[in-house]
Amino acid sequence: MTPKHPIDSLTILTDLVLPSETNPLNNLFGGELLARMDRAASIAARRHSRRIVVTASVNHVAFNRSIPLGSVVTIEAKISRAFSTSMEIFLDVWIEDRESGTKMKANEAIYTFVAVNETGNPVEVPQLVPETEEEKSRYDAALRRKQLSLVLAGKMNPHDATELKALFM
Amino acid sequence: MTPKHPIDSLTILTDLVLPSETNPLNNLFGGELLARMDRAASIAARRHSRRIVVTASVNHVAFNRSIPLGSVVTIEAKISRAFSTSMEIFLDVWIEDRESGTKMKANEAIYTFVAVNETGNPVEVPQLVPETEEEKSRYDAALRRKQLSLVLAGKMNPHDATELKALFM
Amino acid sequence: MTPKHPIDSLTILTDLVLPSETNPLNNLFGGELLARMDRAASIAARRHSRRIVVTASVNHVAFNRSIPLGSVVTIEAKISRAFSTSMEIFLDVWIEDRESGTKMKANEAIYTFVAVNETGNPVEVPQLVPETEEEKSRYDAALRRKQLSLVLAGKMNPHDATELKALFM
Amino acid sequence: MTPKHPIDSLTILTDLVLPSETNPLNNLFGGELLARMDRAASIAARRHSRRIVVTASVNHVAFNRSIPLGSVVTIEAKISRAFSTSMEIFLDVWIEDRESGTKMKANEAIYTFVAVNETGNPVEVPQLVPETEEEKSRYDAALRRKQLSLVLAGKMNPHDATELKALFM
Amino acid sequence: MTPKHPIDSLTILTDLVLPSETNPLNNLFGGELLARMDRAASIAARRHSRRIVVTASVNHVAFNRSIPLGSVVTIEAKISRAFSTSMEIFLDVWIEDRESGTKMKANEAIYTFVAVNETGNPVEVPQLVPETEEEKSRYDAALRRKQLSLVLAGKMNPHDATELKALFM
Amino acid sequence: MTPKHPIDSLTILTDLVLPSETNPLNNLFGGELLARMDRAASIAARRHSRRIVVTASVNHVAFNRSIPLGSVVTIEAKISRAFSTSMEIFLDVWIEDRESGTKMKANEAIYTFVAVNETGNPVEVPQLVPETEEEKSRYDAALRRKQLSLVLAGKMNPHDATELKALFM
Repeated sequence: MTPKHPIDSLTILTDLVLPSETNPLNNLFGGELLARMDRAASIAARRHSRRIVVTASVNHVAFNRSIPLGSVVTIEAKISRAFSTSMEIFLDVWIEDRESGTKMKANEAIYTFVAVNETGNPVEVPQLVPETEEEKSRYDAALRRKQLSLVLAGKMNPHDATELKALFM
Repeated sequence: MTPKHPIDSLTILTDLVLPSETNPLNNLFGGELLARMDRAASIAARRHSRRIVVTASVNHVAFNRSIPLGSVVTIEAKISRAFSTSMEIFLDVWIEDRESGTKMKANEAIYTFVAVNETGNPVEVPQLVPETEEEKSRYDAALRRKQLSLVLAGKMNPHDATELKALFM
Repeated sequence: MTPKHPIDSLTILTDLVLPSETNPLNNLFGGELLARMDRAASIAARRHSRRIVVTASVNHVAFNRSIPLGSVVTIEAKISRAFSTSMEIFLDVWIEDRESGTKMKANEAIYTFVAVNETGNPVEVPQLVPETEEEKSRYDAALRRKQLSLVLAGKMNPHDATELKALFM
Repeated sequence: MTPKHPIDSLTILTDLVLPSETNPLNNLFGGELLARMDRAASIAARRHSRRIVVTASVNHVAFNRSIPLGSVVTIEAKISRAFSTSMEIFLDVWIEDRESGTKMKANEAIYTFVAVNETGNPVEVPQLVPETEEEKSRYDAALRRKQLSLVLAGKMNPHDATELKALFM
Repeated sequence: MTPKHPIDSLTILTDLVLPSETNPLNNLFGGELLARMDRAASIAARRHSRRIVVTASVNHVAFNRSIPLGSVVTIEAKISRAFSTSMEIFLDVWIEDRESGTKMKANEAIYTFVAVNETGNPVEVPQLVPETEEEKSRYDAALRRKQLSLVLAGKMNPHDATELKALFM
Repeated sequence: MTPKHPIDSLTILTDLVLPSETNPLNNLFGGELLARMDRAASIAARRHSRRIVVTASVNHVAFNRSIPLGSVVTIEAKISRAFSTSMEIFLDVWIEDRESGTKMKANEAIYTFVAVNETGNPVEVPQLVPETEEEKSRYDAALRRKQLSLVLAGKMNPHDATELKALFM
């Protein structure tokens, strides 16, 4: 399979925060944002693999900035690293001020999807070749995150997680 | 404030998987489960703190088992540790087979919520005293997860994350 | 078929009242509560029968207490009596005050479901053996309700509805 | 207040059965129909009273005929009797066959609404004068249903429910 | 096929404006009204043709009057002209004031649907015979609209659009 | 006010076709697409004007290509011309094949929005300066469409619609 670049899977989902999606403080519910990001990430994973894709995991997501009712929310999703049958998708979420038009980073998230065939079995995906500095940095970090995920799931001995361990030494 | 026990915040959300919530393989969308878990976790956090609560972060969530259309899904949420103004909520998700009634673990997730006042500023929450063995083990792990979260956010030096570092030594 | 107890079908659905589900007085729409109770009752009926189940009827439901936006609503559903192919499900609906944590009964409802096979034909269900005082009292009343339902539908002569008639003598 | 006729509150809600509203047999969920009927009944009650109205109770509703995906469902709601501050609304639900156009009665339901002011307190509503034979018969039966409702709620002694008792003598 | 009259396809969809359907000015979203009108028009087209029908186009729709939260909205849809396999549907949208009961025209819209068989291929529909003055006037205008639509799509030379051209001469 | 370019308002809404949004042929409902386009157009209008915006009208929309369940749908919205207080938004809708990744034009649409202040009164918007050939061609056609709209609404004499008339001469 021909390797692909992150730009090939770039997916942009711009939408409004509607009244039915807000909490008692009139901000977007965390759960609703998680669902929107899942849809954007699944499209990016599909664009990279050209396969049916299913959510495998969601990495640590921090909700740093509340997103008020009526905001325009832009989710940008791109593949950050491809493994054998899985893909890590990095999402950047932006909100913009209606009057000034200023864009602010609201939060980041990382989802992992697996490509499957019609019977639900994993299938191979093309490799990813990062291009920009940010893409390269996210590509490297993806390996440490995969090790962390395997360690937390008890599927890898912490002492074998070379890149991850280096972080604490 | 009087400390509380995990059982005080136990929240059970049993519901069906409806046709509008499924992906092309006829399984529950990951994003929809994330949204349901967010609602269950927010109720547990509210029961512990008796305050308005907002999602602060979602820890690593693995989707190990697909959840088919028509399933009965039971989400059980309980506080696993309280910090100064934040609470970690541990969620267990079960599905049951319609014919045999057998319950199977579908996945686990960990959310963090912050208690806030009417203007959105953080307020203190009661401490948590774990009772069962499982509750105690989750209580201890919560500290390591908080350190990991601070390290990943660049707010703690990895060398100071004593409990977390011990995992790799 | 082995008889079952009400506790075997106990179904708890705890959820929030979201902004999209409220009327002009900012209380939960009656229709939305009816739909939620239908889902909870269908799960209880399924847990008792281990079959596909369909709503057969809704008994008199009184909305005694309005349920404000942002409330935590807990629906508890249990089988109250099993007939040949149908089951009566009794639902208790509670709301709790966010600050004090006090639980109040919001209303009660009674639904009847029929167990069916894949082609939609009724099939037998296990009998029910009530255990607590409340369960026994609801079990007895279920027979009078069934007679009332048959009388109102013109399928039973009022003079034959022995238990029901006794109420007026 | 000038009395009104049932025709003054006639409300017709014709809509499709969408895929997101169906159960595992591909028929309309009972709960979804209950919610639609609640909206239609609330409009009829509002047309009669010209006030804010809230659901007070739902009478016995029988689901005699299943309503398949893709059906056209017509709900017709009309006030059947007005009491001091409450109104009984009678609903007839029809489905029609796409190819032949034949209309069939799917079910009937009876809801009760109360008219309230901006602070939620009950206010008086105009009286109802039935015109057709069916309207007169439903008007008479409404009194027996109100007595039954009061008896079941423990607010009326069965021996005082004159019209209702007559049914069993 | 026996011709039909506009009254044979009359479809009435009366419903409330719910909080989840409003924009920042607390009025019904244009997009939500477009979707409701599409459902009403599709039922009218189906009643005329007794076939599966799909949206072919939406004519110019003007939103002259905003529709506030809590309004009762009545959509009336009727076939205005039948062509070989397509039908033009004319929709009138009314809102009524809760206190006075006064009905006001909110807007009009014109949709075109095509009748298809199970494989999606167009099939013939009955002709339409208008009866009232308004129906006749809308029937005549429908031909000009069809010409305009063909001209705009580049499928008809403007000089051949006889009835349309006459408008500008 | 400084004039703006079409690129300044470019809004991309990429999303999936979910099961709850499909008709009996398993294609996206016309009404659902109209609602999504309305949201995308409103964001583009807001980006151009930095004001609250409300839908004023929808031009002729043709649904040339059906959009099957599971498709990835990309809506691109850009201002095509600004008038005194209103903006015409041109939308291009694309679907892509999952396996080959080929993008196909599904349809086009044109919406008009008005910028308003907090009390709903129209306010001025910046002028638009088209840059590409396509943008210039759409800019010119926008004037003819506005004349057509005024003629159809009876607010302009057809003989005064100079640019529009030229089309038929």
